Amino acid sequence: MEVSVTTSSVPDTAVEIRLASRPEGWPTTDNFDIVEAPVPEPGPGQLLVRNKVMSVDPYMRGRMSAAKSYVAPFEIGQPLDGGAVGEVVRSNSDDFSPGQSVLHSLGWREYAVVDATQATAVSSEFPPSAFLGVLGMPGMTAYVGLMDKARFQQGDTVFVSGAAGAVGSLVGQLAKLGGAERVIGSAGSPEKVRLLTERFGFDAAFNYKDAPVGEQLRAAAPNGIDVYFDNVGGDHLEAAIGSMNDFGRIAACGAISQYNATEAQPGPRNMFQFVTKRLSMQGFIVNDNTHLKRDFFEHVAPLVREGRISYEETSVDGIRKAPEAFLGVLRGDNTGKMLVNIA
Amino acid sequence: MEVSVTTSSVPDTAVEIRLASRPEGWPTTDNFDIVEAPVPEPGPGQLLVRNKVMSVDPYMRGRMSAAKSYVAPFEIGQPLDGGAVGEVVRSNSDDFSPGQSVLHSLGWREYAVVDATQATAVSSEFPPSAFLGVLGMPGMTAYVGLMDKARFQQGDTVFVSGAAGAVGSLVGQLAKLGGAERVIGSAGSPEKVRLLTERFGFDAAFNYKDAPVGEQLRAAAPNGIDVYFDNVGGDHLEAAIGSMNDFGRIAACGAISQYNATEAQPGPRNMFQFVTKRLSMQGFIVNDNTHLKRDFFEHVAPLVREGRISYEETSVDGIRKAPEAFLGVLRGDNTGKMLVNIA
Repeated sequence: MEVSVTTSSVPDTAVEIRLASRPEGWPTTDNFDIVEAPVPEPGPGQLLVRNKVMSVDPYMRGRMSAAKSYVAPFEIGQPLDGGAVGEVVRSNSDDFSPGQSVLHSLGWREYAVVDATQATAVSSEFPPSAFLGVLGMPGMTAYVGLMDKARFQQGDTVFVSGAAGAVGSLVGQLAKLGGAERVIGSAGSPEKVRLLTERFGFDAAFNYKDAPVGEQLRAAAPNGIDVYFDNVGGDHLEAAIGSMNDFGRIAACGAISQYNATEAQPGPRNMFQFVTKRLSMQGFIVNDNTHLKRDFFEHVAPLVREGRISYEETSVDGIRKAPEAFLGVLRGDNTGKMLVNIA
Repeated sequence: MEVSVTTSSVPDTAVEIRLASRPEGWPTTDNFDIVEAPVPEPGPGQLLVRNKVMSVDPYMRGRMSAAKSYVAPFEIGQPLDGGAVGEVVRSNSDDFSPGQSVLHSLGWREYAVVDATQATAVSSEFPPSAFLGVLGMPGMTAYVGLMDKARFQQGDTVFVSGAAGAVGSLVGQLAKLGGAERVIGSAGSPEKVRLLTERFGFDAAFNYKDAPVGEQLRAAAPNGIDVYFDNVGGDHLEAAIGSMNDFGRIAACGAISQYNATEAQPGPRNMFQFVTKRLSMQGFIVNDNTHLKRDFFEHVAPLVREGRISYEETSVDGIRKAPEAFLGVLRGDNTGKMLVNIA
């Protein structure tokens, strides 16, 4: 039996953000269309969700291009998508009731019709935004990359780039809590660098714009590094290879330095050190690792609950600001998780 | 009780090759001194070995430089060293008798004083040179890299560079015998390319000097590759990353394209594909893997005995030719294992 229940009045039309055109190099607001469109009706087994908060993430830049990648590209003329938390306003599923908060993947719109099988109820113990950050995809990315791909061990010296972001700040804190010998982070502003040492407990941090990364990393890690968590690529990767100790491990998570490049960027000139120092590197995508989701939540949620892990959020208000928030995350305007408050 | 037994007359002096100077870029014969030196006396627990055949290997180039690496550099004014098989002529060890053949690491000289603990008796079932090639360090390198580091599986498409060398030719054959879907090799001459398909059973092979490596690899592996065994580095590595299928694996063994470079060479410009395709790369050095030595021998020796594995040797006669043989291996003059017949 299908039950359609409405808790609040739903407007006839609502805002969604569509891909207007594919960017060459850096995207601009012209690549997005802000459209008032009819609010769709949920079909059998579906929910109508009023989105409260949505995520903008660097990986979305790849989806703006047509090239085949690990997630399907956005389609021109269609709304973008991405992680969001909202409130169920109509339910055609026995598993969800109006008023419940759910995590789903149809952000970039005020109202979303979501298959009940694609929605996850979220606990009110944590703020909704936590499920888009420290307890969501970015948090899981940090956990999987550090623990599984880089095979972190107590006593390691760990370097993470993009360290003030949602992923990087958790990598550093998990490493410290796990008994790292030393944790070093790089970021792109003096404020972020200060945050790394003063709030997130990094042992050392530097601004990659101040001087060559290799030089700053050698100064920050005079005894070398054992693990590198790469969010940036480019000269950060070359610097990390150069500072690696024997049997060092690299988790390759992202390359934000290259997402908007219009031609191929120079690669690391020191790849032969993979042989001489027996290095390993493992590229990964968080979605391949759902078997670790329970481990992640059981490891990280108590640390968040107890206040032993800090997280930062940068948010903008109003869905019409979502394109600007996204451009900001590519420029590094955010500290911690970049969010768009919708409702 | 020490027993010193002599089976044949030993001269007072014999030839050894010493490092005269460290090369900048490509070495020349001027970097070597050919010296007539007194034949030393074995001390307690030592053997005097008359070398019959010795190995010249690309990795020795690294040891000619002063830079710290995974093996100690050669010392100026001292004899070089490296794998050799010889006959025991005097023994101060109960474990060895004159007349026995032993494998040891003090090549580059006609007579060597070897600690008995550093010598391995070798079976007369195989020619002595086999213990410097297919059943020795190069063979073990191929086995460890393919099976353990690249985690080869039946059905994989495998690409190996430097495929006509001692290591590469075994990698290709082990992959074929292990059920590879397709095995592709690159080499540097038409003769070697022909040998790969006609003798070693590769499915496809190309001359990397004929056209860009990426283009030739795409043509040879239209469905992509799952494993890359890297002996070369440089543009071969970039091409392999470009042709990798999802979850592909790279064993980084050597980078002969770069050993004589006087400045840093460009790196792969497509490192971000490590993320999108979830690639892994593992650098290794055979000496770290002695726990696999028995597996290796039990796997490969029967295949050699049954004639199911072929190997090629290129040899020069006379220890005075050793420097030229070594320069030849760096230029790729050899097919299969490069050897120097001493006695």
